[in-house]
Amino acid sequence: MKIGIIGATGYTGLELFRLLGQHPRRPEITVVTSRKEEGLALTSVFPALSGLANYDQLCYEAPDKKNLAGRADLFFLATPHGTAMELAPALLESGARVIDLSADFRLRESEVFGQWYQPHAAPELLAEAVYGLPELYAPEIKAARLVANPGCYPTSVILALAPFLKNGFMADDAPPIIADSCSGTSGAGRGATAGTSFCEVHDSFKAYKVVGHRHTPEIEQELSRLKGQSLTIAFTPHLLPLNRGILSTIYAVPSKGVQIDDLRDIYLKFYGSAPFVRVRPSGYEPQTSDVRGSNFCDLSLFYDQRAGLVKIVSAIDNLCRGASGQAVANMNLMSGWPEAEGLGLAPVRP
Amino acid sequence: MKIGIIGATGYTGLELFRLLGQHPRRPEITVVTSRKEEGLALTSVFPALSGLANYDQLCYEAPDKKNLAGRADLFFLATPHGTAMELAPALLESGARVIDLSADFRLRESEVFGQWYQPHAAPELLAEAVYGLPELYAPEIKAARLVANPGCYPTSVILALAPFLKNGFMADDAPPIIADSCSGTSGAGRGATAGTSFCEVHDSFKAYKVVGHRHTPEIEQELSRLKGQSLTIAFTPHLLPLNRGILSTIYAVPSKGVQIDDLRDIYLKFYGSAPFVRVRPSGYEPQTSDVRGSNFCDLSLFYDQRAGLVKIVSAIDNLCRGASGQAVANMNLMSGWPEAEGLGLAPVRP
Amino acid sequence: MKIGIIGATGYTGLELFRLLGQHPRRPEITVVTSRKEEGLALTSVFPALSGLANYDQLCYEAPDKKNLAGRADLFFLATPHGTAMELAPALLESGARVIDLSADFRLRESEVFGQWYQPHAAPELLAEAVYGLPELYAPEIKAARLVANPGCYPTSVILALAPFLKNGFMADDAPPIIADSCSGTSGAGRGATAGTSFCEVHDSFKAYKVVGHRHTPEIEQELSRLKGQSLTIAFTPHLLPLNRGILSTIYAVPSKGVQIDDLRDIYLKFYGSAPFVRVRPSGYEPQTSDVRGSNFCDLSLFYDQRAGLVKIVSAIDNLCRGASGQAVANMNLMSGWPEAEGLGLAPVRP
Amino acid sequence: MKIGIIGATGYTGLELFRLLGQHPRRPEITVVTSRKEEGLALTSVFPALSGLANYDQLCYEAPDKKNLAGRADLFFLATPHGTAMELAPALLESGARVIDLSADFRLRESEVFGQWYQPHAAPELLAEAVYGLPELYAPEIKAARLVANPGCYPTSVILALAPFLKNGFMADDAPPIIADSCSGTSGAGRGATAGTSFCEVHDSFKAYKVVGHRHTPEIEQELSRLKGQSLTIAFTPHLLPLNRGILSTIYAVPSKGVQIDDLRDIYLKFYGSAPFVRVRPSGYEPQTSDVRGSNFCDLSLFYDQRAGLVKIVSAIDNLCRGASGQAVANMNLMSGWPEAEGLGLAPVRP
Repeated sequence: MKIGIIGATGYTGLELFRLLGQHPRRPEITVVTSRKEEGLALTSVFPALSGLANYDQLCYEAPDKKNLAGRADLFFLATPHGTAMELAPALLESGARVIDLSADFRLRESEVFGQWYQPHAAPELLAEAVYGLPELYAPEIKAARLVANPGCYPTSVILALAPFLKNGFMADDAPPIIADSCSGTSGAGRGATAGTSFCEVHDSFKAYKVVGHRHTPEIEQELSRLKGQSLTIAFTPHLLPLNRGILSTIYAVPSKGVQIDDLRDIYLKFYGSAPFVRVRPSGYEPQTSDVRGSNFCDLSLFYDQRAGLVKIVSAIDNLCRGASGQAVANMNLMSGWPEAEGLGLAPVRP
Repeated sequence: MKIGIIGATGYTGLELFRLLGQHPRRPEITVVTSRKEEGLALTSVFPALSGLANYDQLCYEAPDKKNLAGRADLFFLATPHGTAMELAPALLESGARVIDLSADFRLRESEVFGQWYQPHAAPELLAEAVYGLPELYAPEIKAARLVANPGCYPTSVILALAPFLKNGFMADDAPPIIADSCSGTSGAGRGATAGTSFCEVHDSFKAYKVVGHRHTPEIEQELSRLKGQSLTIAFTPHLLPLNRGILSTIYAVPSKGVQIDDLRDIYLKFYGSAPFVRVRPSGYEPQTSDVRGSNFCDLSLFYDQRAGLVKIVSAIDNLCRGASGQAVANMNLMSGWPEAEGLGLAPVRP
Repeated sequence: MKIGIIGATGYTGLELFRLLGQHPRRPEITVVTSRKEEGLALTSVFPALSGLANYDQLCYEAPDKKNLAGRADLFFLATPHGTAMELAPALLESGARVIDLSADFRLRESEVFGQWYQPHAAPELLAEAVYGLPELYAPEIKAARLVANPGCYPTSVILALAPFLKNGFMADDAPPIIADSCSGTSGAGRGATAGTSFCEVHDSFKAYKVVGHRHTPEIEQELSRLKGQSLTIAFTPHLLPLNRGILSTIYAVPSKGVQIDDLRDIYLKFYGSAPFVRVRPSGYEPQTSDVRGSNFCDLSLFYDQRAGLVKIVSAIDNLCRGASGQAVANMNLMSGWPEAEGLGLAPVRP
Repeated sequence: MKIGIIGATGYTGLELFRLLGQHPRRPEITVVTSRKEEGLALTSVFPALSGLANYDQLCYEAPDKKNLAGRADLFFLATPHGTAMELAPALLESGARVIDLSADFRLRESEVFGQWYQPHAAPELLAEAVYGLPELYAPEIKAARLVANPGCYPTSVILALAPFLKNGFMADDAPPIIADSCSGTSGAGRGATAGTSFCEVHDSFKAYKVVGHRHTPEIEQELSRLKGQSLTIAFTPHLLPLNRGILSTIYAVPSKGVQIDDLRDIYLKFYGSAPFVRVRPSGYEPQTSDVRGSNFCDLSLFYDQRAGLVKIVSAIDNLCRGASGQAVANMNLMSGWPEAEGLGLAPVRP
């Protein structure tokens, strides 16, 4: 299997190299593109990768649609929002399959995409694109030409709530679910910005885009499908002074009489065969280091009896499970391989 | 003015030395106690303090009630919960005034204290103790013999909600207010524990005591007084990989028709003369580094129209505003000095 | 192949689980011991490992010599100094092979060990033990019953200097080589101590054991063998506020007329077939993140013409290359497998 | 006293605001300039400063030489290298005194400056400029019109070696002194660069500019003056994943028969009246957190008998003692105030 990575100078690209380099099926990376680093050797940009796979042989080229056709069976698009929808049609037409790590194909309706992002350049593909969350859409992913890899925050929130909503545990008159989420700084990308410079982030913590973060409609889309009716959430992202990790603390009012142990059983059943969701025992305090560098999503459930609320805490690695690890799981499914192939990496602790 | 610091080997004690050492009224520290470090020089335990004030002359002694009487006009109790209520009665009887940084005198009802902590050893003092939040209780603090210095999380949550509740902005049928709070690790104290060792905390983030943290009743007590009726909150603490700082993101359903700009005006009026609360302009994203090392509390207000929620974000330094800085402000008020005396320290950025 | 891990609650033990869990030869861990955690499930102590290999089935038992015999083909001793020399004789006698990650068998002479550590309990094994640095001792390691896995600092210093000393580049009248080394905090182990608590280490940097660190004789032993005559070094360790990584900056006066490019060629030749040493091109600034989580040692050479000094900078991950990764490489060699088997993990960046 | 701050958007500018805002002589900041932020309010760029001194009233203006004349008694130039030498002549001519925090006036010889930086635009001022290290040049600073505030690394190295060299402790045939220095990231400035973004620096450590860092000639100039003869050093800077702090570990071969306790006595005598140098007792392990946010320089001396080397470790806060704190000390001296006025801030621990 030949692989192309488009936009291979960011952190999701780098994480793809990490994961694909030790994948037992030995997919061969044949094309890597970057407008900015055109002509440079991959390992001069990422010296960490030297000595691994064929990485010392790879050079960046510009992402020219014509030159890409036929050179890979599967393309990962690790480009900024807005670029993937320009590239995907030609790549698909050339017969390749595409996993897009940007937001371009995550929303099913082009109007919604337009409201939150920009006018969509390939709206005809939105209906075809499969939302690449294996726990919910494995059969569709296997058959897909175009997979929209989920956002990092949405992955952490949707996995936390899927069994709850799917099984009707949300009270009918419940107030909006609240998702209070905190992400490591790699989620902001590799570009140098004042706000993500070391001295601004280190030893500090902040809320940002407190209202209106663009992951909101993606979360609502999937939660609404799970619940079977339209649903609004209150989502607040925060920036953590750490490299990798998202922790979401989610507040939901359950229907009356819900017992927390029953709820945990439902979660265990729902995720029984999922290799990457760990429903934790009572009292476990989720932490991002327990999933660092891995494709796991840890879930822990709590019932706050005094306030009448369920608190669900989920932890993922935003770069692995929240981006490139999930993309590799999707590649596995699309290739007929086991979902977990090459992703059984233990968390890196400490 | 002579000062005693009881339990002067923890981080709140250390922060008192930092603040008192540069206080323009030059309060003299005459007694420092520690059971564990009895006989040692203060600056051998805290070399950072060498060369400042009279700190190179101070030695730890054991906290013997009899020996303490008469040696200071004001005692700061920086001891663990349970110790202050043993010491305070004798110190008060000797004529000294007391600022207790532990939880021992924060709850007004001994039964509630008993439920969340342990049986109270000096319940007769609970009625007399003044809750040391200057923005709410300055007149009472000025006259107090015994001040219960607020907890760090409660300070961040109560200041964020006081104008909202006091002015009747909470909807009558509103669901419980949610306080999602994140604290730097100094809040866990200076003791060596497995959970707060560097490699466990660094580059990680976790929720802990997800249900039932002991700051809950303290927060509810004060919020209920502000609202004028009993109120329950859902409070979730988290541990941040940084030294100092608490950021609380608070979710409340407002009464209908509330405009966010009006609400901000109410906050500006409420805190108009408060030297340490900064009500931030629209769009400001609060961050703990903007208050690091200072006594400020930064507040920022947001309205999530889609979800119908007000989001209030507050940032403090847990050791300064959330503990020793607030204690010094209380000392100022008790001494007839301006509240801000010696506390006009700029945040330490970066 | 059956594996026993003795002292499996520390960070080197945890790293062994990470590496062995994805090793393609599927070594089976059959015994894990811990005095302190006897009876507990492995994944209750290390929840991060849940869902991997057979780790959810493993329970800690006490390290009883009698019970260990025959239950594994190879034992990793991840115990504190002083314990391995008590356990190793019986394990070897039972027919098992042993890789000791402590210092107990690293020094060839029992008197030297006695001077720096304590009287040796199994001095007869010192002559047999092989110093487990594959780049220098691969043939001996393959045949060894007992491998002394090198210390973390020594690994970083010896690899940096081996070609220099082996090829006679050190000036005859040169002053002592200086090794200024900085280690991440995981090198201090998993135990909770005041000095390694988060708030003491975070946002700080210190020198420690400035004179007399116990890795000094180990470094001198190996450097002297490389040079062919006795040699003294000045070694200064420092504590970094990060989890994993050692960077050593080494200062040596070369013999006259040495050209830095020639020296780099010598290094490239010396390490030509070594899978884990990356001799970096001119100007590369080594950083610990480029080897984080991997078994690589990055080396970069500089010539300071004004001062007449060669500066060699080496970077390793202290837990992987400096401990458990190297131990797995030794296991590979002892088992007749390629040295790099299961160790081709890309650095975890960011 | 009226103060102007030129280039007031960087970290040294920010630190000046922190220190001047609580200075008991209440110097009034009347002018703040920035090309980039012209027209913006100071506290919109640095919200942390809101509510302090007159900072909410200050706005950035462009640094126009003509407009600056007469508006301040003293100007701090916190500009990049190359700008100060353009501005200083006009400011001096207008009758103001100048403290330059850049490198422009630190080297006494314009040819040396030209070799390491660029041709000097105001060479006639080099002879007049006083090197602003109060422990060495207090009398000259008091009378100076133009003070060249020392570099951060040079401050840490020169203070560590001054008594050693001044008192003839360096062996005649000694090899070059080695200064292995590590700096927090604020030393790289506030600009956003790829190399100082959070995810590149956090949890990592690197050497940089391993040969040829531009602080080398500044260090050599001052050390040579202390020794009384020309001297070469080997200097290696490193980047620490922390905000503030420089730790220098310095290796020097002493003349024969030097006793470490005698040496410490010499240091104690040399710095006896210096308010900001703390010569630490035997065995103290210097750490940057012990000086964080303060103007102290901590010094600790060690003798490595086996290697025949003295190791001197110094710790400073690069932004305070290594830049703006030292600048304020110079302002104090130039104004006839005590050197330590307004600088008696305790280190911020943790």
